[in-house]
Amino acid sequence: MMERRLAASELALEPEQVEEEEESAAEDFVEYYDEPGTIPGTLDLEEDALPPTIVLIDYNETKASRVVLDSPAACAPYLDSESVSWVDVMGLGNESTWRRMEKVFDLHPLVLEDVVNVPQRPKVEDHEDQLVIIARMVIPKEKGIGFHSEQVSFVLGKHYLLTVQEEPEQDCFQPVRDRIRHDKGIIRKRGADYLAYSLIDSIIDGYFPVLEAYGEQIDQLEDEVVTQPTRRTLEKIYQIRRELLALRRAIWPQRDALNSLIRDGSDLISPDVRIYLRDCYDHAVQVMDIVETYRELSSGLMDVYLSSISNKMNEIMKLLTVISSIFIPLTFIAGVYGMNFNTEKSPWNMPELNWYWGYPLCWATMIATAAGLVVFFWRRGWFENYSTLKDD
Amino acid sequence: MMERRLAASELALEPEQVEEEEESAAEDFVEYYDEPGTIPGTLDLEEDALPPTIVLIDYNETKASRVVLDSPAACAPYLDSESVSWVDVMGLGNESTWRRMEKVFDLHPLVLEDVVNVPQRPKVEDHEDQLVIIARMVIPKEKGIGFHSEQVSFVLGKHYLLTVQEEPEQDCFQPVRDRIRHDKGIIRKRGADYLAYSLIDSIIDGYFPVLEAYGEQIDQLEDEVVTQPTRRTLEKIYQIRRELLALRRAIWPQRDALNSLIRDGSDLISPDVRIYLRDCYDHAVQVMDIVETYRELSSGLMDVYLSSISNKMNEIMKLLTVISSIFIPLTFIAGVYGMNFNTEKSPWNMPELNWYWGYPLCWATMIATAAGLVVFFWRRGWFENYSTLKDD
Amino acid sequence: MMERRLAASELALEPEQVEEEEESAAEDFVEYYDEPGTIPGTLDLEEDALPPTIVLIDYNETKASRVVLDSPAACAPYLDSESVSWVDVMGLGNESTWRRMEKVFDLHPLVLEDVVNVPQRPKVEDHEDQLVIIARMVIPKEKGIGFHSEQVSFVLGKHYLLTVQEEPEQDCFQPVRDRIRHDKGIIRKRGADYLAYSLIDSIIDGYFPVLEAYGEQIDQLEDEVVTQPTRRTLEKIYQIRRELLALRRAIWPQRDALNSLIRDGSDLISPDVRIYLRDCYDHAVQVMDIVETYRELSSGLMDVYLSSISNKMNEIMKLLTVISSIFIPLTFIAGVYGMNFNTEKSPWNMPELNWYWGYPLCWATMIATAAGLVVFFWRRGWFENYSTLKDD
Amino acid sequence: MMERRLAASELALEPEQVEEEEESAAEDFVEYYDEPGTIPGTLDLEEDALPPTIVLIDYNETKASRVVLDSPAACAPYLDSESVSWVDVMGLGNESTWRRMEKVFDLHPLVLEDVVNVPQRPKVEDHEDQLVIIARMVIPKEKGIGFHSEQVSFVLGKHYLLTVQEEPEQDCFQPVRDRIRHDKGIIRKRGADYLAYSLIDSIIDGYFPVLEAYGEQIDQLEDEVVTQPTRRTLEKIYQIRRELLALRRAIWPQRDALNSLIRDGSDLISPDVRIYLRDCYDHAVQVMDIVETYRELSSGLMDVYLSSISNKMNEIMKLLTVISSIFIPLTFIAGVYGMNFNTEKSPWNMPELNWYWGYPLCWATMIATAAGLVVFFWRRGWFENYSTLKDD
Amino acid sequence: MMERRLAASELALEPEQVEEEEESAAEDFVEYYDEPGTIPGTLDLEEDALPPTIVLIDYNETKASRVVLDSPAACAPYLDSESVSWVDVMGLGNESTWRRMEKVFDLHPLVLEDVVNVPQRPKVEDHEDQLVIIARMVIPKEKGIGFHSEQVSFVLGKHYLLTVQEEPEQDCFQPVRDRIRHDKGIIRKRGADYLAYSLIDSIIDGYFPVLEAYGEQIDQLEDEVVTQPTRRTLEKIYQIRRELLALRRAIWPQRDALNSLIRDGSDLISPDVRIYLRDCYDHAVQVMDIVETYRELSSGLMDVYLSSISNKMNEIMKLLTVISSIFIPLTFIAGVYGMNFNTEKSPWNMPELNWYWGYPLCWATMIATAAGLVVFFWRRGWFENYSTLKDD
Repeated sequence: MMERRLAASELALEPEQVEEEEESAAEDFVEYYDEPGTIPGTLDLEEDALPPTIVLIDYNETKASRVVLDSPAACAPYLDSESVSWVDVMGLGNESTWRRMEKVFDLHPLVLEDVVNVPQRPKVEDHEDQLVIIARMVIPKEKGIGFHSEQVSFVLGKHYLLTVQEEPEQDCFQPVRDRIRHDKGIIRKRGADYLAYSLIDSIIDGYFPVLEAYGEQIDQLEDEVVTQPTRRTLEKIYQIRRELLALRRAIWPQRDALNSLIRDGSDLISPDVRIYLRDCYDHAVQVMDIVETYRELSSGLMDVYLSSISNKMNEIMKLLTVISSIFIPLTFIAGVYGMNFNTEKSPWNMPELNWYWGYPLCWATMIATAAGLVVFFWRRGWFENYSTLKDD
Repeated sequence: MMERRLAASELALEPEQVEEEEESAAEDFVEYYDEPGTIPGTLDLEEDALPPTIVLIDYNETKASRVVLDSPAACAPYLDSESVSWVDVMGLGNESTWRRMEKVFDLHPLVLEDVVNVPQRPKVEDHEDQLVIIARMVIPKEKGIGFHSEQVSFVLGKHYLLTVQEEPEQDCFQPVRDRIRHDKGIIRKRGADYLAYSLIDSIIDGYFPVLEAYGEQIDQLEDEVVTQPTRRTLEKIYQIRRELLALRRAIWPQRDALNSLIRDGSDLISPDVRIYLRDCYDHAVQVMDIVETYRELSSGLMDVYLSSISNKMNEIMKLLTVISSIFIPLTFIAGVYGMNFNTEKSPWNMPELNWYWGYPLCWATMIATAAGLVVFFWRRGWFENYSTLKDD
Repeated sequence: MMERRLAASELALEPEQVEEEEESAAEDFVEYYDEPGTIPGTLDLEEDALPPTIVLIDYNETKASRVVLDSPAACAPYLDSESVSWVDVMGLGNESTWRRMEKVFDLHPLVLEDVVNVPQRPKVEDHEDQLVIIARMVIPKEKGIGFHSEQVSFVLGKHYLLTVQEEPEQDCFQPVRDRIRHDKGIIRKRGADYLAYSLIDSIIDGYFPVLEAYGEQIDQLEDEVVTQPTRRTLEKIYQIRRELLALRRAIWPQRDALNSLIRDGSDLISPDVRIYLRDCYDHAVQVMDIVETYRELSSGLMDVYLSSISNKMNEIMKLLTVISSIFIPLTFIAGVYGMNFNTEKSPWNMPELNWYWGYPLCWATMIATAAGLVVFFWRRGWFENYSTLKDD
Repeated sequence: MMERRLAASELALEPEQVEEEEESAAEDFVEYYDEPGTIPGTLDLEEDALPPTIVLIDYNETKASRVVLDSPAACAPYLDSESVSWVDVMGLGNESTWRRMEKVFDLHPLVLEDVVNVPQRPKVEDHEDQLVIIARMVIPKEKGIGFHSEQVSFVLGKHYLLTVQEEPEQDCFQPVRDRIRHDKGIIRKRGADYLAYSLIDSIIDGYFPVLEAYGEQIDQLEDEVVTQPTRRTLEKIYQIRRELLALRRAIWPQRDALNSLIRDGSDLISPDVRIYLRDCYDHAVQVMDIVETYRELSSGLMDVYLSSISNKMNEIMKLLTVISSIFIPLTFIAGVYGMNFNTEKSPWNMPELNWYWGYPLCWATMIATAAGLVVFFWRRGWFENYSTLKDD
Repeated sequence: MMERRLAASELALEPEQVEEEEESAAEDFVEYYDEPGTIPGTLDLEEDALPPTIVLIDYNETKASRVVLDSPAACAPYLDSESVSWVDVMGLGNESTWRRMEKVFDLHPLVLEDVVNVPQRPKVEDHEDQLVIIARMVIPKEKGIGFHSEQVSFVLGKHYLLTVQEEPEQDCFQPVRDRIRHDKGIIRKRGADYLAYSLIDSIIDGYFPVLEAYGEQIDQLEDEVVTQPTRRTLEKIYQIRRELLALRRAIWPQRDALNSLIRDGSDLISPDVRIYLRDCYDHAVQVMDIVETYRELSSGLMDVYLSSISNKMNEIMKLLTVISSIFIPLTFIAGVYGMNFNTEKSPWNMPELNWYWGYPLCWATMIATAAGLVVFFWRRGWFENYSTLKDD
């Protein structure tokens, strides 16, 4: 950040993106961008940041070793050996590390920019003797639904694979590391391209548990939305739609990237690894399918929600109407016999008041009226609907 | 499952998908996925499961025999003979069976994975001397609408066809078996490719009865939604939309697979079977068409539902308004003559109370007011709408 | 049907589609399907049905004759002559007729199935020396809007055209027959391909009057939906949407079929007839266009309907609010002076009752209150909206 | 029309389209269609109609002349000269004129039909030595928004251009005529293809003023829909959607036609005119863009309308609720003290009535109740919303 | 404008677009159009306008100079030199300037028209030795969200780049100018194509801050729409949708233009600049992605808004129903004992009035009734919802 702010002042631009860190939701969508006019290849890193952890795993069919490196330069001897060297950089670190990395791996300035200035859109770029793959890994949240996403960049060479992770804490590569260490499966018999496939496969498969959590959430909302739709339900539906949109934006370009990897694949990927990638592509298509399906379901939920709310209003209105309709006429009758016309002035003035059965007859009239109205509403089935209201 | 959990612990991953079995609705949508990082080719089977039933039907133009096999190895002699051998595996069984199967049929590890780790997305894969087809069979529910779906995998070789069904109980292949047994049609005169076509055709045609049930359900909802829309109606519409979505996800890739089978068809499929497959493709397109049409209809139903609910609310409001509007003024009049102004203090204080015709005049006023309001509402046609409410 | 049920029992399947005939609306959408597993080429006809009417029109530039044939076999001599032979089969008849037809015209079993087992999706299939076209003819209903649709199948050979109509009653081919009889236009100078074009053109042009009826209906609904939306309006809109969906499903594949006819056209169609077909294709595109436009309009109508209903509710609510707001305060005032506080116990107890001008003042208060409220509502323009309600 | 009805009777068809002229809105959408089965090339013209006005403008670099012709035959000498001849036919006239025209210009019967039987879908057809372009010109209404549309057909030959306008009254070609007359720009230096371009460019540019009017209308509705949505607003929104649909149907095929003109352009169009057409194509794309944008805006307006109506209802309901909630409890209190329990029978019977401060205390209670409720509603901000209602 | 009005009068057209300047919102959408029939190449400029500011920056690897030019002619000597000449024209100026520019740069009349008659749709056109790029620059508003957009045209030659900006005030090119001046990055080592890339990259990156502002606005609306939706919220949502539509229309063709630049790129762009352009294209795709995502979010917000409004109405209705339902029965009871039946005439006439505990019993009844209703509503959870209403 330090370095970037310096650059900004040199360029005489207002530092208007300084508060960028505070927004949380918007960041899901706006990818990394240079301030307009920045020199291509500028890295947006804080110079005083700690250097990243660099782990080198070097293996061939017979042996596998794991070294934690102090400096990028220490990689150099491994890169040209026949054994597969996996250089795993965890955390983005500071600019000086990357300038040295640039030299050791002979990276194009734009590649360096894509790797470091996260987030970038997933893609595949073929740079003659290097294949650059930008991918996006999702990690489900510890509790509740939702996910945290992180960019993973791959630079695949003849005998080496450089991977760069945004955050040092978590990844989904442990099983692959164990397979290398314990020589499980065929990974030790294959080259760096198979390693790259294995890692990408882990990333794609990592989308399924996240999707499964959304599936359960949608199932649960399907009940909630019909039986007791509240404002909270509405928020949850919107939240799911929003996050599915973010997932879709992550997986869609990844699918395209895998497709171009299979189709116009470079020499760095051997034909039988391509078969494995096709399998991986199938999984990406499945992820897309599920995301689209969930999007349609959640959009249907919104319709159901609106209908449910209208239904509720009908029930409320019915209750009001029933009560009002029954008591308003009765109150009118009571009002009539509360009038003070002088019965002594005329035999026509409220003779009912002086009848022997006046009061009981008045009650009889009121009860009959009420009963008539109850029957009227009963026949239209208003009370049935009312009883369905009960079992909420 | 046993085996899988072992693998999970070896890989030091949380067994977070253990409760997966409980969800029912979500499973329609989330396809099978390996835990991220699993070795490609891992089979997710319980080692103590019973072995699957393996039935071999071997036929040529002159004879047909049916054998229930104990072990995959027993298939071997049939596979290279000139007669057509249909190896029908019912149920997924345990891993050891499949490891032997792998050897007998010389299956690629990824093919084995697709066949066993269900559900997979329908597809066609060409593996030189084998054609692998993943299909999805639907079986209508015994009662009510809805369906149960099951993966059927085909491995087509030169003289044999291996089919693998997820569940041993039910399939839609009986008519084909009968045609082979009784030598009906041309099936005995053709090769394994025609057999594969016949089975795929059965699967595709199996979608029609399911769709027909939805068609009837939609017809019925069309009435219900206008005449008496209830919360139950809403649930049914949403349910149909959801299931049509599932059907669409099953048929769409199957159509694509059939298309690629016809277009870039391997040598394993003879040109005149390709003509039959074109017919089968036409049917798949029809299924898609109907599914899309039903989706549009059910989405239209949701609009109608919402409008209907609003209509109902209007009727309820009208009733409340009519009753309130008629009785509130009357109650006011009764209230006026219930006031206790002292008529003796002033000739201006409620002289009506002492008139000879006071009470009858009061009633006359009230009746006139009520009649006026009734006429007012009558003229606006409120009672007409009200009578349409009656014939619900 | 007889024959089909036999087949069903042989195949040990439940005859679950027997009640199929009763549904009316769903049948618009579900195309014909064999029971899953049926032998390809099975015909679904009743053996005891009457044979179809077969009319043969044979013509060349100099003469034209019309013969009603007893049996398909009677066609044979005409088919190879140089003159154009139009064999028009009206009604589907029974299986034995078709088995003979199959031989006379040398039909592929799948073609026969497409022709007889209606409805099929419109399509074009090229069978070397025969071109098979499945089309769908619409016939407007005698009264009201709506249409009846019927499959017409064409088998075009070098010098003959076989057409098969589903129902014997009605078609739109009479003008073409007249043009042949009276030698109008160039039809007698051209071959069977031009005849096929003329008939297809009649079929496509037959969609326009049907669409025109929908156009008028939509025009009429546009008024109705704003001025007096009723439940009936809602049903009509949904009905139109449903029928336009059916029309769209009929015309869409027909347009595609025409397109493939022009593009990869077989040798059976001469280049200058292809120009005429291009014109016909243009018309099919126009039909599609209009159908899509009407679909958008009717979907807009649904929005307008919902808004209109809400508007109505607002008017009703306003009326209720006006009446309640005016009379509830008045009733309160009347209630106050109906209280029985003892005026003799205290000069503070309702002295108004004993005032000389008490009662008139009370009325004045009430009238002032009512007037104030009327002015209040007047200023907000509620009565204006109310007067617009009047001119419904 | 005369001639057509004759044809109809000959063909023994019901003249069911006679009332076609009355509908106004539907005609925007249904294109011209022959009665099903009509002979291709039949012209739908009234024989007793006046002949069209035929104006011939003949020019080359050095001179330009304008002649009003009596008869199509008079064109003949001009057509083969090296100078550019623009034959502008205004009005469709009668059939005999067109039969002569057919000979003079050597038109294909289907071309003649497209030119005369309006409206046709815009398209380009290449007839070897003639290029036929069907376009649709829009002319804004004199007052208010909306437009009148008219077909213009172009037949482009080597040295001539035939244009046919549906109506003689109005066109947007005057500026082009002036440019020819006054030799402005390069028009006199170029051939008939440049003339065709100039006229098509005028037609496409003629869409912009129409669109601008819709833009203003939408701007205006955007205010109206939020501040005072009435039923009239709803009608206007629907009207705009409908007319934009009509515009879209006019411009869409025109864009496609221009595209095919540029791409597979015939020899009749020189390469540098093709550059001009590319510019014209860009404009057509812009028109499409704007139409689509307006369609989205107007569809958004419908949503806003519905929300606005619901908002209004909320305000009305709030008013009713406030008034009812305040006065109903007060009326209850008044009702209590209007009861006639005999105070003399028991000290518990309504002793309040005989209290010295009874009546003032009663008022105090009522005022306190009302004040409490007002404060309650005030705190929830209901009066704020109410004041926003005021500034409508 | 002056010049244009002259032209209009010459062409005898009504000057109906004169008031064009007043509309503000519509102008976002309607691109520049000539009055129909205008001569191609007509420039719409005011002859008395000030000439534009022309700044020439000429640089090569060793030196860089900046000159403000008086006249276009002064550029001529620089254009053919080996050094890169950037001619930056700020403001559109008057026609005479452009006529001289046309000669100096040898511009095609249609290119000149595209450059001057703004706004045009972004595009790329290849004119042999010149590459013309029309782009659209967005500049965020000083305060609040929203943006101002401006056309920037590029004419790229072998050794020069002509850029034309619509407004002289603001641009986003300052950082590029600084990079040239201070020789930062590789810009001084590259040709005019790299300069063009740098400027286009600045333009595309300029979209991100604008989008970020919308992202924040949407975040904020997401809260507002659920907790306190007002009419203002509705306006804001609509406003965002409208502006995103405008952004989309700006970026979409720009992305296409970049794509065609990379794909069929002319000789004027060297292969390694094409790699940079690919990066720039990626950014344009990201902008598109974000715009589409925001459009979906804002469209979802509209749904949430409508649901929220309905929710509010439910709460209001519930309050009304609760208050009415409780007090209406109580008022009825009070009304009953306000009746005046003569207790002396009959022991059945309201004996309650004379009971010793009459009045307390009456209160007890009323309190029990009210309590019963409160419990009834409590159990249905109406008060819970009511308390959620409180925390608005």
